[in-house]
Amino acid sequence: MLNFIPFTKARINDPVWQKRIELVRTVVLPYQWEILHDRVPGAERSYCIRNFKAAAGDIKERHGGMVFQDTDLYKWLEAVAYVLAVQADPTLEAMADEAIDLISRAQAQDGYLNTYYTLEKPHRRYTNLMEGHELYCDGHFIEAAVAYAKATGKTKVLDIALKVARQLHNYFMDKPGYPGHPEVELALIRLYEHTGERFCFDLALHFINVRGVGENYLDMERQDKEHEWVWEDMKRFDNKYFQAHAPVREQDTAEGHSVRAMYLYSALADAGRITGETALCDACKKLMDNVRTKRMYVTGGIGSSSFGERFTTDYDLPNDTMYCETCASIGLMMFSHRMAKMTSEVSYYDTWERALYNTVLAGMAADGKHFFYVNPLEVVPVNTKNNVTLGHVHATRQSWFGVACCPPNVARTLPSLSGSIYALDEDKALYVMTHIASAFEDQGIKASLNKQGEEFTLQLDGPPMTVKLRVPSGFTLMLNGEEYRQGTAQLRHPGGAAAYPYRLMPITRWLYAHPAVSQGGGKCCLMRGYEVYCLEEKDNGTHLSGLYVSDQVVTEEPSDLFDGLPVLVAQGLRLNEQSWQGELYTSTTPDTSPCEARFIPYRYWGNRGEGEMRVWVNMK
Amino acid sequence: MLNFIPFTKARINDPVWQKRIELVRTVVLPYQWEILHDRVPGAERSYCIRNFKAAAGDIKERHGGMVFQDTDLYKWLEAVAYVLAVQADPTLEAMADEAIDLISRAQAQDGYLNTYYTLEKPHRRYTNLMEGHELYCDGHFIEAAVAYAKATGKTKVLDIALKVARQLHNYFMDKPGYPGHPEVELALIRLYEHTGERFCFDLALHFINVRGVGENYLDMERQDKEHEWVWEDMKRFDNKYFQAHAPVREQDTAEGHSVRAMYLYSALADAGRITGETALCDACKKLMDNVRTKRMYVTGGIGSSSFGERFTTDYDLPNDTMYCETCASIGLMMFSHRMAKMTSEVSYYDTWERALYNTVLAGMAADGKHFFYVNPLEVVPVNTKNNVTLGHVHATRQSWFGVACCPPNVARTLPSLSGSIYALDEDKALYVMTHIASAFEDQGIKASLNKQGEEFTLQLDGPPMTVKLRVPSGFTLMLNGEEYRQGTAQLRHPGGAAAYPYRLMPITRWLYAHPAVSQGGGKCCLMRGYEVYCLEEKDNGTHLSGLYVSDQVVTEEPSDLFDGLPVLVAQGLRLNEQSWQGELYTSTTPDTSPCEARFIPYRYWGNRGEGEMRVWVNMK
Repeated sequence: MLNFIPFTKARINDPVWQKRIELVRTVVLPYQWEILHDRVPGAERSYCIRNFKAAAGDIKERHGGMVFQDTDLYKWLEAVAYVLAVQADPTLEAMADEAIDLISRAQAQDGYLNTYYTLEKPHRRYTNLMEGHELYCDGHFIEAAVAYAKATGKTKVLDIALKVARQLHNYFMDKPGYPGHPEVELALIRLYEHTGERFCFDLALHFINVRGVGENYLDMERQDKEHEWVWEDMKRFDNKYFQAHAPVREQDTAEGHSVRAMYLYSALADAGRITGETALCDACKKLMDNVRTKRMYVTGGIGSSSFGERFTTDYDLPNDTMYCETCASIGLMMFSHRMAKMTSEVSYYDTWERALYNTVLAGMAADGKHFFYVNPLEVVPVNTKNNVTLGHVHATRQSWFGVACCPPNVARTLPSLSGSIYALDEDKALYVMTHIASAFEDQGIKASLNKQGEEFTLQLDGPPMTVKLRVPSGFTLMLNGEEYRQGTAQLRHPGGAAAYPYRLMPITRWLYAHPAVSQGGGKCCLMRGYEVYCLEEKDNGTHLSGLYVSDQVVTEEPSDLFDGLPVLVAQGLRLNEQSWQGELYTSTTPDTSPCEARFIPYRYWGNRGEGEMRVWVNMK
Repeated sequence: MLNFIPFTKARINDPVWQKRIELVRTVVLPYQWEILHDRVPGAERSYCIRNFKAAAGDIKERHGGMVFQDTDLYKWLEAVAYVLAVQADPTLEAMADEAIDLISRAQAQDGYLNTYYTLEKPHRRYTNLMEGHELYCDGHFIEAAVAYAKATGKTKVLDIALKVARQLHNYFMDKPGYPGHPEVELALIRLYEHTGERFCFDLALHFINVRGVGENYLDMERQDKEHEWVWEDMKRFDNKYFQAHAPVREQDTAEGHSVRAMYLYSALADAGRITGETALCDACKKLMDNVRTKRMYVTGGIGSSSFGERFTTDYDLPNDTMYCETCASIGLMMFSHRMAKMTSEVSYYDTWERALYNTVLAGMAADGKHFFYVNPLEVVPVNTKNNVTLGHVHATRQSWFGVACCPPNVARTLPSLSGSIYALDEDKALYVMTHIASAFEDQGIKASLNKQGEEFTLQLDGPPMTVKLRVPSGFTLMLNGEEYRQGTAQLRHPGGAAAYPYRLMPITRWLYAHPAVSQGGGKCCLMRGYEVYCLEEKDNGTHLSGLYVSDQVVTEEPSDLFDGLPVLVAQGLRLNEQSWQGELYTSTTPDTSPCEARFIPYRYWGNRGEGEMRVWVNMK
């Protein structure tokens, strides 16, 4: 088991990361605050604050937006918490306290908290667990509350959260229902781990235990003549969509809506870690293995189908029609983090890094104000605009969405990363799980990790301990003259203050997809370290389908566009379009001309105007 | 201009084609008759005959099925007509006469004929031209009527059709409306060409002339507060879907629903031929060029998007998510045929043959009872079953569909082909447009085309004339020791009886898609003659994505499975799946093992159980 040094004790120093977190603090969160207040001209209406004001009785309005609109505020609040742990910001903190006060006043006497049901259907509480998102909203609020209490030491928000949790406990513990969108489970466990209130864990475990067991609860809702559908489309979704097709301990393939899946599996991993129950831990391992070895894009994206934003089947990984929602990859980071916690196996962080450094970071533009929901591996803009099958794919980041899950989810993820860097295992060995320049002080240990290009130094002051430096997939770690390619590089700290230099060298390599991946044949993908690279039209012209990598030798070119990451260049061949003489198909072997194939890091794509992009490239 | 020898004068003798036409006569049409009567256990209900009986007042029932359900009977009747021209079949003819009698009794006093509106909305005639399909139904009835009159000499059906046409003429000639689904235009021209009734042509030309002109008529319907939508989905379709986005003479890209497009363009080509109007003829040429050079699959399939079953944009030709409806390729044959008629350019028949020998013939199973609507170029059955994006794609032919357009459309197309083989131009030169063993007797000419493998003999008896043998794309034609690769091979018939042997040798060749085709890169496609070949799992194992063609030498293996066509075999390499060691992506260059890549003709795919299939194959 690994105990991570919490975000309240650790701090990221890396300038690239700091810049990003500063962007969240100074741009994203103030901008989102304006969005939540419907004060951004041209942006789609959020209704979020208005809904809370109406629920609090401040104004008379009907509910606006989605049934889960409340979570935009909660995710914003959670992000503020992480930011405040890094740096005092009285303006942000005042906004947050104002939000908490508003939330408090929107909470019912009995603890119930939900603006949609309070305003629109006060007598229909918990009648539509499948679609109503009440428990999902509660979960996001509880997560925010725990984070804010940890960051600021203020307890008002925690009181609201415990009141919510008690109301849920009173209502649900003897009932067969569970949320259609998992989230409250992992949140209740966070609340339990912060407060020690066992009833919170009991309720989380109850939701886990009743899911998919016996007469299917979601079927009961569907058959209920009083059921009021929120979305007509939901009628088409099976119980797999909701991960309710089987008892969770019997689930061994990642199914259904990918964000739901990740949130559920994260809770399972937490519960398995806490209870030590083998069946639960084994289910988590199988689910993660299924994701990692059969259902995950090379970018750490998940969700192969736009319809249902969901998993489909093993090896079904189309590069153009996929969903690969940013939020789902955030969920994959959450699940991976918890698997590492549960098992002390560092390799789960390979997946964590894959998701973070590619899909999650691709989600937000350099300006902090534009976002991708869907993260394609292949885009031809004229096709996405003219073919409805690709209608969900955008070739440029959008400013905000009606369903604004991803932007605040990215905003809460980035500043919380300091809590994912260091861990102690049961023998008090110190793990450096991911190599982000940072520092912490906790449990008598003072450590800092400094970075100068590929050179790292771990400064350590504290008692004697074993130190384990995780070797990330895609890197060679050099420590004391030894080369490590996997697992951890270990050293023994004799106590006192000492500095341990090591080197982390990214490996540039070509990847090949398993032959069962239908769109993978004949193609390769270039990676360097954790970063997936891609071709963009900006550097390579149009019709990327006509470009072949012909030589696997890769040279690096420095660039100031990608936060220090180089452009990668391989020799290629370009099909000569004159060979087709205006026809669509030719039987003449096409001429080719030598060319350079210029690759940039995937997560920076789409920042230089609209154009084609592809990750999997033809090879000769 | 070409004048084709009509189906009533020509007769196919080729045993493979005869077998197929016999299948239509002895299996498909009797089976469809039972379907139309809802007498096939397990099949989806048709309601078709029931609707006519109800409209005729024989029974009291509401309308069942789609608004265009009547056309199932009309297409069946048209198919019966072509079959009867080939071979007397008193049982079929009695069924047809029974059907005509029923149709006659379902027709209103004023000539109006439509069971849906008659039964459900008698006062809403012509208020929903966008979706109501009244004119579409009329068109299919008129086509059937002309065919049946030609085939049998019976005129009762023609009287009904002329009554329909007169009613339409009275109603529409001074109105801005036109059909949301083109079809009546080409049908009215057929009726005009058979009867000489000029008002029929006037009305067809009127519909053509008002389409997309001035204040958009479809927009007017949309804005009409009384508009009763047939399909909610139709609200999402733009005027391009209906080819009503611009005056037809200004349309130069193939847009919208591909069947609608083909039926409209066919009418334009007929009208252009008859009027000689340059603007109309030029528009047709541009539209056909756009299809042939930018928007057509190598199989002659059209319609890149399932949503809207429609054209999307140039070069957008995904192999897995496409629609490629069988009916659309029948439409492409119709348009190609008419372009050849209009211009005397034989190359339009390359497209005609591409569509016929691949997508259209793939549409019907060997048993005549199972059909493909959607004709994919790449199928992995486990993906089509689990990914809703591919939900419209089936890996095996289905017995009948709720919207039963394709089966009767195939049934009417196959026996009518005898009318597409021979033509005379304005100088009375005789064209052999496509090389199907057959014979005709017309206009003082008696001809027969015999086939023995690749050896053909044209037996000719008649006046002196030039004979032009079209050289089909993908063949070498040898005549009198000369090799022809394109255009026509000409000979001079001095008059009297003579036999002209020639040889038609299919060229086996690899094709490459234009680099703008996003899914085309790194792949090749094998063709022999007109036939596209494909890999099937049955012959090549699973994971066709892991199979590469490594040597372009192709050997032929005789087979008795494909009506005399050989299996084609190329040397290939198969990725060794052990290289992945259970992972999804590997950075180790994968091992390969030599293997055979065994190709079968595309149109026979899916006849040997369910499995993977792909047309575009990776190449090393």
